[in-house]
Amino acid sequence: MPEMDIPKLHEFLAQEFPQVADDVRVEELSDESITVRLRVAERHLRPGGTLGGPAMFLLADVAAYCLILSRIGWRPLAVTTNAGIDFLRKPAADSHLLCEATILKMGRALVVVEARLFSEGVRDLVARANLTYSLPPEGQTPEVL
Amino acid sequence: MPEMDIPKLHEFLAQEFPQVADDVRVEELSDESITVRLRVAERHLRPGGTLGGPAMFLLADVAAYCLILSRIGWRPLAVTTNAGIDFLRKPAADSHLLCEATILKMGRALVVVEARLFSEGVRDLVARANLTYSLPPEGQTPEVL
Amino acid sequence: MPEMDIPKLHEFLAQEFPQVADDVRVEELSDESITVRLRVAERHLRPGGTLGGPAMFLLADVAAYCLILSRIGWRPLAVTTNAGIDFLRKPAADSHLLCEATILKMGRALVVVEARLFSEGVRDLVARANLTYSLPPEGQTPEVL
Amino acid sequence: MPEMDIPKLHEFLAQEFPQVADDVRVEELSDESITVRLRVAERHLRPGGTLGGPAMFLLADVAAYCLILSRIGWRPLAVTTNAGIDFLRKPAADSHLLCEATILKMGRALVVVEARLFSEGVRDLVARANLTYSLPPEGQTPEVL
Repeated sequence: MPEMDIPKLHEFLAQEFPQVADDVRVEELSDESITVRLRVAERHLRPGGTLGGPAMFLLADVAAYCLILSRIGWRPLAVTTNAGIDFLRKPAADSHLLCEATILKMGRALVVVEARLFSEGVRDLVARANLTYSLPPEGQTPEVL
Repeated sequence: MPEMDIPKLHEFLAQEFPQVADDVRVEELSDESITVRLRVAERHLRPGGTLGGPAMFLLADVAAYCLILSRIGWRPLAVTTNAGIDFLRKPAADSHLLCEATILKMGRALVVVEARLFSEGVRDLVARANLTYSLPPEGQTPEVL
Repeated sequence: MPEMDIPKLHEFLAQEFPQVADDVRVEELSDESITVRLRVAERHLRPGGTLGGPAMFLLADVAAYCLILSRIGWRPLAVTTNAGIDFLRKPAADSHLLCEATILKMGRALVVVEARLFSEGVRDLVARANLTYSLPPEGQTPEVL
Repeated sequence: MPEMDIPKLHEFLAQEFPQVADDVRVEELSDESITVRLRVAERHLRPGGTLGGPAMFLLADVAAYCLILSRIGWRPLAVTTNAGIDFLRKPAADSHLLCEATILKMGRALVVVEARLFSEGVRDLVARANLTYSLPPEGQTPEVL
């Protein structure tokens, strides 16, 4: 049973990420994975109607962050230390973007998450990312951003 | 002599990245490197006043993109294929973020750029990133995003 | 039907990678994925009996390379342009290492492969990697290593 | 003053990396950076005389590892958690490979190192890498490889 369920995660997003809370929505949540939707809004698009890399990075980061919080509870101290992303295909122009994130390793100090992004209803991957988060010892402040 | 100078790059940003054009400014430009400033606005901040990873990724991507365009001219087809970023230190709370990007390789088909982010007036690195862009053959559409 | 089957890949390894050909073996091959075994030899081990990061990187690279060749045929020009790897867990001391590699994108010019490494008989991932290869246009020499 | 000087690092390499100790040599060492040479031997080469990606990865890893040890002392527990590498140019055929590694962040728990590889006597970069190492708390075993 997760420490934070979907409504709790939405509450967290509204408070900690007010700029994006209206655009992202947690669709599914299990112990090992999460699915998060990015409602593609005008401001995420480049001229021509494609979604830019930074918006995809944002979605992967939010999904991974929510997945970790669902496991460890509301702890805004977890910080990204490293991320890598391959952009594979152009997302479908008028579709929402979905991100499926999975925990690869839940360590004492580091959590590694894998994220796969695709356009709703399209099977081919749009992007894949790996993200590492540092969990500071209880009661300590994080040493990295 | 660059194909696009600083005023031309600002024109490009206003047209292609209207969402961020007000926040970023090219400060310096040479054949091999560029410095871009992110005026840290309220909407880039997390509660507590720190700047999030996605905003840093955005800055690195915009800086690298402008650097490449300054070399090859206005060609909105160049696309990011891969990026990696290490988040090293918490940025200073009330400072603008600066990104220095350098071309590591300017190939026929691929361009590799390195970016270093720091808070204005602080020497220690906040983050470093590597970004690869694909240059489609003249007259062809890009195969990746 | 692959352009090169398993015996053909072993022939390629013996010729192009004589240093490792005795240690690696292609176990399974399909259109989208490959499984390659690294027989863990004394010279891959660090004192204490653990396998080092470079040996794992080597295995991921060989597996990805063979997978691509099985699709495009014997073409020793394909070159790695970028790779990222997360080391997740210590491999089991006396076990062979297996690598499952999958093609994420087979483009005209770039191929992106994902690799997962684990110790034989153990479910938890030891490492995961992403690798990008550049395919030079037919008849041209590659521009990167 | 480093915790381990160059002769001490060679002693470490001979003991912990006997397979490569004959091929690598620490050339320069300061508080923040190290230069390590890979004597290019027959067994590092692919047919055609080029050096493969795994050999470059190995050199970057050994250089970063030695740099960290020179700062924290002989502590074989430090482990690589993440690495990324861009392969930029074909190394010169008959030249040794040099790696300059620099510490980007020396944290309590994580160390981030940047490495630049080039052929001796050639200015253009052959590859660049980023590597992260986890430092287990004193007296504890590392949680990752």
